[in-house]
Amino acid sequence: MAVYTHLGAEDLARLVAEYDVGELVSAKGIAEGVSNSNWLIETTRARYILTMYERRIDTADLPFFLGLLDHLSDAGCPVPRTIHDRSGAAWRTIGKKALAVIEFLPGVSPTAPDPAQVRAVGAALAQMHLAAQDFPMTRANDLGPQDTLAILRQCGRDALASIDGALPTILETGEGIVGNWPDGLPTSIIHSDLFPDNVLMLGDRVTGMIDFYFACSGAMAYDLAVTHAAWCFDGSGGQGDPALGAALIDGYETLRPLSDHERIALPLLAQGACLRFIASRAQDWLDTPADALVHRKDPMDFVRRLEFYRANGQSAFA
Amino acid sequence: MAVYTHLGAEDLARLVAEYDVGELVSAKGIAEGVSNSNWLIETTRARYILTMYERRIDTADLPFFLGLLDHLSDAGCPVPRTIHDRSGAAWRTIGKKALAVIEFLPGVSPTAPDPAQVRAVGAALAQMHLAAQDFPMTRANDLGPQDTLAILRQCGRDALASIDGALPTILETGEGIVGNWPDGLPTSIIHSDLFPDNVLMLGDRVTGMIDFYFACSGAMAYDLAVTHAAWCFDGSGGQGDPALGAALIDGYETLRPLSDHERIALPLLAQGACLRFIASRAQDWLDTPADALVHRKDPMDFVRRLEFYRANGQSAFA
Repeated sequence: MAVYTHLGAEDLARLVAEYDVGELVSAKGIAEGVSNSNWLIETTRARYILTMYERRIDTADLPFFLGLLDHLSDAGCPVPRTIHDRSGAAWRTIGKKALAVIEFLPGVSPTAPDPAQVRAVGAALAQMHLAAQDFPMTRANDLGPQDTLAILRQCGRDALASIDGALPTILETGEGIVGNWPDGLPTSIIHSDLFPDNVLMLGDRVTGMIDFYFACSGAMAYDLAVTHAAWCFDGSGGQGDPALGAALIDGYETLRPLSDHERIALPLLAQGACLRFIASRAQDWLDTPADALVHRKDPMDFVRRLEFYRANGQSAFA
Repeated sequence: MAVYTHLGAEDLARLVAEYDVGELVSAKGIAEGVSNSNWLIETTRARYILTMYERRIDTADLPFFLGLLDHLSDAGCPVPRTIHDRSGAAWRTIGKKALAVIEFLPGVSPTAPDPAQVRAVGAALAQMHLAAQDFPMTRANDLGPQDTLAILRQCGRDALASIDGALPTILETGEGIVGNWPDGLPTSIIHSDLFPDNVLMLGDRVTGMIDFYFACSGAMAYDLAVTHAAWCFDGSGGQGDPALGAALIDGYETLRPLSDHERIALPLLAQGACLRFIASRAQDWLDTPADALVHRKDPMDFVRRLEFYRANGQSAFA
């Protein structure tokens, strides 16, 4: 959450002139996105989000990410549209960095969502899965359970133990998850990271799903499991909230009922989702100096959630 | 430049309800201000800046800072108005932290200002000095040349040399500045920190002077000298830009002509201004780990500017 690059007023005004969006009135660097710099810019016509891609994102993926926003937005999903420049390009470069301008959407991210809000998120996710089924591009998922288990192995048992003495057993747990990973689930483009931070709401209405930079081809039920792991717990305690969980599934099924195969797979998919966030958090933890100003997220939050899914099986989704 | 405190959507909505400003529509943490957390919030009525005071600011000073905004705004200065809550209070607390809501102003901060822009800044500064003369409160300047020399002495000769081998001679230079500091210059409330970051402009028009958290009672010519040191150089090279310098003085004098006493004092006042930024940058440099993500500003930039003022004397302001 930072602005990594300085863009001056003159740079911004020159950039804005490349788009048919009116003249620049205001620009504020915003503390959003973990690996990009973002500005909220205002012109004489409207507000926009300017994103500069700093790291972790391969510009070869930009046509996929930015085209997906347009496709979903055209289908009526609450997703920001990509603003194309006067030549029709979805992204440009300043120096060696790529950037894109996308629509600004109203709404705030809930931090203590209630069941009505989680139901709306479930429905928005299903709407997105259905709308993406005729999106013509694909992108491989490079954060499947094998990949995330490999990240944990690279961290190493000793380093994991330095974070928490109970963490290294995740290596064995992870092997079990990978070994039992289900095949043949129905796929679409999935968001893969639909945490509350990536959802904008006004009251019970989803006004925006944002930050599609982990989107890829994948099992829709896995995306639902990620969203369950992200939304349906009471803080860091690892206790699932049954009312929130039921609301999420219920909302999802208003638009896209789950098959038996998907329903049966959910507990293991959710464990795989937890494995991924344990791996990314452990890696960030080990890469971040303890005295850095950046807040490190505790991987144990998702160890506890994984344990909850193992202990409760199908009843976690009842 | 960061957001130090997490305020959730629910916290923000509860806070906004304490003001007669409509309902919350959007909130983005913005990368502005060095010692406060700031959000750009939007309601059904307008946009506002929410500032949470994190450190360096004594809440006993808030009536001065926030009252000054209202006073200057009432007088027609391009300064954001303080939004008072439903009980009339200029600031509130959440937990142990104080916060205030102020008006959002359009404009962007120039990074390569031209003479017409600098002339407008000079005029806006003079307008502010005149408007503040009947502001009923006072605040002592705790960053005068004695204070900043004391900061440099506390850093210590060895530590200063660790930043740059040429830096320790600033201790002797500083003694000369303090020994010759002029008395009896006409005073008002001064901004004290009117760098381009703290000015919003649209074209050649100043739409906002912001971040008054160093404002205090002081010599108006000193504030003009600070502004000269901040605006009228070509980057870090220490070469004064005569066209910008002339435009600043010219713009200022359209509203408030300088006395001979003030004009003669300017070269030394400007050296005192440089001394202050050398001290604050040296202190921050020594307090910030070299591997921190925060960008450290080089105190030598202002050593070079100080040398420029010593070498050029009165002609730096011709």
